[in-house]
Amino acid sequence: MKIDGIAYRSLWIDMEDGWSLRIFDQTRLPWSIEILRLTTRDEVVQAIASMQVRGAPLIGAVAAYGLALSLRADSSSEAMERDAEMLARTRPTAINLRWAIERMLTRLRNTRPSQRLAAAYEEAALICDEDAAQNEAIGRHGLALIEQAAAAHAGGSGASSGSDGHRRVNVLTHCNAGWIATVDWGTALAPIYMAHDSGIAVHVWVDETRPRNQGAALTAWELGRHGVPHTVIPDNAGGHLMQHGEVDLVIVGTDRVTRAGDVANKIGTYLKALAAADNKVPFWVALPSTTIDWGMRDGLREIEIEQRDAAEVTRMTGRAEDGSIATVQVTPDGSAAANPAFDVTPARLVSGLITERGRCDASESGLASLFPERASAFPASPFAKYL
Amino acid sequence: MKIDGIAYRSLWIDMEDGWSLRIFDQTRLPWSIEILRLTTRDEVVQAIASMQVRGAPLIGAVAAYGLALSLRADSSSEAMERDAEMLARTRPTAINLRWAIERMLTRLRNTRPSQRLAAAYEEAALICDEDAAQNEAIGRHGLALIEQAAAAHAGGSGASSGSDGHRRVNVLTHCNAGWIATVDWGTALAPIYMAHDSGIAVHVWVDETRPRNQGAALTAWELGRHGVPHTVIPDNAGGHLMQHGEVDLVIVGTDRVTRAGDVANKIGTYLKALAAADNKVPFWVALPSTTIDWGMRDGLREIEIEQRDAAEVTRMTGRAEDGSIATVQVTPDGSAAANPAFDVTPARLVSGLITERGRCDASESGLASLFPERASAFPASPFAKYL
Repeated sequence: MKIDGIAYRSLWIDMEDGWSLRIFDQTRLPWSIEILRLTTRDEVVQAIASMQVRGAPLIGAVAAYGLALSLRADSSSEAMERDAEMLARTRPTAINLRWAIERMLTRLRNTRPSQRLAAAYEEAALICDEDAAQNEAIGRHGLALIEQAAAAHAGGSGASSGSDGHRRVNVLTHCNAGWIATVDWGTALAPIYMAHDSGIAVHVWVDETRPRNQGAALTAWELGRHGVPHTVIPDNAGGHLMQHGEVDLVIVGTDRVTRAGDVANKIGTYLKALAAADNKVPFWVALPSTTIDWGMRDGLREIEIEQRDAAEVTRMTGRAEDGSIATVQVTPDGSAAANPAFDVTPARLVSGLITERGRCDASESGLASLFPERASAFPASPFAKYL
Repeated sequence: MKIDGIAYRSLWIDMEDGWSLRIFDQTRLPWSIEILRLTTRDEVVQAIASMQVRGAPLIGAVAAYGLALSLRADSSSEAMERDAEMLARTRPTAINLRWAIERMLTRLRNTRPSQRLAAAYEEAALICDEDAAQNEAIGRHGLALIEQAAAAHAGGSGASSGSDGHRRVNVLTHCNAGWIATVDWGTALAPIYMAHDSGIAVHVWVDETRPRNQGAALTAWELGRHGVPHTVIPDNAGGHLMQHGEVDLVIVGTDRVTRAGDVANKIGTYLKALAAADNKVPFWVALPSTTIDWGMRDGLREIEIEQRDAAEVTRMTGRAEDGSIATVQVTPDGSAAANPAFDVTPARLVSGLITERGRCDASESGLASLFPERASAFPASPFAKYL
């Protein structure tokens, strides 16, 4: 997607050396665009853990290149298996990370050590290209939902009218599931970019997404740089807006969807799903199929929820009046803080899933209808924790 | 209540001059305890509008003294009526503000101008003493709920055990309905203080309460200074904690309750009520009867929701690393923000109300059972907007 008219992906191989990995340091956005160069497994682990790169599809792609960088140092099977496990454990909730590592290993285990490095770069590039293509397809399948909402408004009137006299379509999103959370396009934001680009008057309510402010810092930045109208709101405000008819649909991304349709996503997603259900607002979840965990059913009981540092809650970073980037403490000395990073929205609260193969119910039969070959490959087992 | 062992109310008459009003500047908490001196109507209006004083019961008490300060300058009926209306309009959502002004006027209109000043100080002092007494009674009636939860845990075990081996009682609260939101004791926090003081192992989940952080800045400060165990959480986290059995009950305050039991409170309260209902966690609202608007039924349609400055969302204030108080911008330049300050929780989501006369259902019959004389004095009229 574009930053002020120039097209980017969220990661790429350095054009001069041909092997190091380039990423945006997302902890510096929206204040400055800083491009990092990652050259080792450890640098990749650090970038994922510190959330310089984040977003379920993106960390999968970055981890794939992390394994390639590891092979530059040691292409033995022992080192490869050890580093693959280290990369896969960097963050626990998003399934794409483990999926990408397993896919890399499946290819590399059948490749001679001398040829592994080239194979790893090739496979990582395939993962990236497929992610971008899947997200573009998600965009098309989600676009139909926004077109339907726009059609429902056509000829009507409302408080929030577009310049053509038709009421704009108001989409609420939580966290950042945009192009910088993926390789390109984004998941939840892909339909929004397509709607905007096709001339639909779409406006996005952007949840701030405390504690790390991915909404206020990243989604608002992405949308603003692409020119999409949006308004940042406190995480507390979405229910009130839904009560007053100001939200036409919700679209969020996800870090892991069980085969039964339970959805793990950034903490607070569940609260918005409850409000959507209470106000009959459609609640959609956009995901590439790499985010589906076919080995799990009950998301609430089975998905590991990452507990992050309390300092993310007690402190907040932004731009000070002198233009410097500053961190301020927002809680009293001595007050503890808890920081569960994700929650699980039960499938019963999800209107449907938007995947690269189309839309479906958030249910076992819904997912099986779109991905019959995957559903049948993973028969029910409460013990199958991983792909 | 106490700050590090010294008892305070949240407002008092200056002991040296005998007439000016002393308040804590709550915009400076928790970083420093700064006591302001208010001497004119305009200073009172400014203190309420800027939220140096906030909390529905407290702004009623402060406005009552504001009218007394106005009478010092001009005790004519014309000035009194004009300034009363000006004070009542300072903030729109909390009904206590208008209630206190109406109560002052009821007495002062029947008092000769030469005697109004003394009468005003006397009536304002009565309002303060009654608020403190009502909140103490709320504390006693709410304490029973915490005692019940503690009894239910007794002999059980859980992840969060007190030192006696019994599981602690986990109460979640939103915003600040503590002693500094009232004259003394608080509404939602009064039962918690009493439980803690009586030796019950109570622990409070403190919602941060963006955008103004009244939870992280004020509730955490109050509880910490009194020694009550607590943990600050992002506003996004409460639903997740309820899903995992980590919340025994929710207690919040309110800015206005309709005669049918709909509850206006700080933005985000509705989302927590939805999560409580979804997880069968009791959701209680604590209020003095001065917070009931007997002239309204449908809170969602009738209660005016204050829209505050977008800068409260786009900026955040805290303590910088050098110890200074600093404000940082947390959204990109050019991104708009919306800031509805309250939402309405429908009565159907409220387990019950805790008032100075006891607990009741959040319903017309529930409130009428406790306040029959008030319920009958305000027969149904959709046009009776104010007391």
